[in-house]
Amino acid sequence: MQPYVLINGQPADQIGIADRGLAYGHGLFETLPIIDGMPIFYAEHLQRLLLGCKRLGIPSDRLSYQLERDLQQLEPITGPAVLKIILTCGSGGRGYLTPDPAAPQRILILSPMPEYPGSPERGVRVRWCQTQLACQPLLSGIKHLNRLEQVLARNEWRDPDIREGLVCDTRGFVVEGTMSNLCFIRGNRFCTPNLDQAGVEGIIRNQLLQLAPMLGLQIETGSYTPVDIEAADELLVCNSLIGIWPITRLESRDYALGEYTRRLQLALKQRMVQC
Amino acid sequence: MQPYVLINGQPADQIGIADRGLAYGHGLFETLPIIDGMPIFYAEHLQRLLLGCKRLGIPSDRLSYQLERDLQQLEPITGPAVLKIILTCGSGGRGYLTPDPAAPQRILILSPMPEYPGSPERGVRVRWCQTQLACQPLLSGIKHLNRLEQVLARNEWRDPDIREGLVCDTRGFVVEGTMSNLCFIRGNRFCTPNLDQAGVEGIIRNQLLQLAPMLGLQIETGSYTPVDIEAADELLVCNSLIGIWPITRLESRDYALGEYTRRLQLALKQRMVQC
Repeated sequence: MQPYVLINGQPADQIGIADRGLAYGHGLFETLPIIDGMPIFYAEHLQRLLLGCKRLGIPSDRLSYQLERDLQQLEPITGPAVLKIILTCGSGGRGYLTPDPAAPQRILILSPMPEYPGSPERGVRVRWCQTQLACQPLLSGIKHLNRLEQVLARNEWRDPDIREGLVCDTRGFVVEGTMSNLCFIRGNRFCTPNLDQAGVEGIIRNQLLQLAPMLGLQIETGSYTPVDIEAADELLVCNSLIGIWPITRLESRDYALGEYTRRLQLALKQRMVQC
Repeated sequence: MQPYVLINGQPADQIGIADRGLAYGHGLFETLPIIDGMPIFYAEHLQRLLLGCKRLGIPSDRLSYQLERDLQQLEPITGPAVLKIILTCGSGGRGYLTPDPAAPQRILILSPMPEYPGSPERGVRVRWCQTQLACQPLLSGIKHLNRLEQVLARNEWRDPDIREGLVCDTRGFVVEGTMSNLCFIRGNRFCTPNLDQAGVEGIIRNQLLQLAPMLGLQIETGSYTPVDIEAADELLVCNSLIGIWPITRLESRDYALGEYTRRLQLALKQRMVQC
């Protein structure tokens, strides 16, 4: 399967060099799996995209309708695939000042589902990153195109056996993984860092916050240090493509693939096919 | 004059949608005036670009030679123009992980010099922005493509009579303008915020730090609050395109176009023709 690209509903694979997505990262993106022709948790991804538009001043009145039409145009998909939606603020404006009206660009990229060797759903090895995320409430939560901090963090290691790196903010509180959210279980509590200062509010993280109480877990979001994380009973990272990867090794410390994590994996899988 | 674009030395005006410059803002840019066919302070811009490459893990061994060749290829320029150089990390990689080897892309955009109505070199009106810059030492100083904070700050006003907005960091210290550096004079001191936490280390700012002692001014870089700024004798913003704009009004407070600012404008102009 070759990547298949639609730009504003037309087959194309290039954008103009004056686009504000390239010039300033003035845009957003979403990455979601397509299974049996269905984009998984599409409504939730759209909602985050619309929230991002509001924060970044990107007009979105017709976005939901336009994306619906784009999705219909994608060729029938056999087998699991990944859809990346990039929305930029379009080109023009006087420097950083957004043009009025702005003409956003929609880029849809359909690619084969990446292969994750070695059964990571049964446990992965992760590390701590030294790169710290800046505290910026204006940009936290949304999935914008300014991702240099993630690039720096992810480039701290090349060992393919280490599947993810955990990142703190500049205050020293743990935020997330470079490409995933971090959740953990301690006693009967399902915990995940709050994301008011940094980090992306992941779709799967939000699903787990809904599912955990059904398994008898209490929900807790808070500010956690690396010591808090290391003291967890069960640790996991999650995102829309990987689902849930249990952390079975963090640096030199081993963790069991716990019962709650297993049940969350199962519950998430059930919800994905229902959505 | 139409904008004229070279991508990796070839006339073109589009880039692939998989480029890491678009996907993550994994790249850098420089904007410099071309006067009488000469790029002004080119060596200084190249130096900042090379520093940025090092910080962002973009290979740059051949960059200086390649840009030299690109510059020779630009059509002969009559009249003042603006050259924007964008350097991205190219496409590929596994998500945020940079491909090894990376194949950076050079984009050169030549445009007419923007017109700045109303003699701003004799004084401009500026305002305070509410948007605060995050503290991120890993990215401060360099001119990278993650510019959402500047987009947010610049979109706080549309009144064309206000020519620039001043921005603080999240600690409350003044950093710079949305598109310029801020300098001020108090007594016999030439002061400018240090940029170890946020902000771009401007080429003109650095020139002024060299020129000010020749006018008998003492140099001071530090952490300044808005109150410190408002108590200045002379205030100015500067960048490579505008040179020096004296601030003659900040919110509701008026400032004279002072003698030191006038002498710095003159000294800078002389240095620009020598460079």
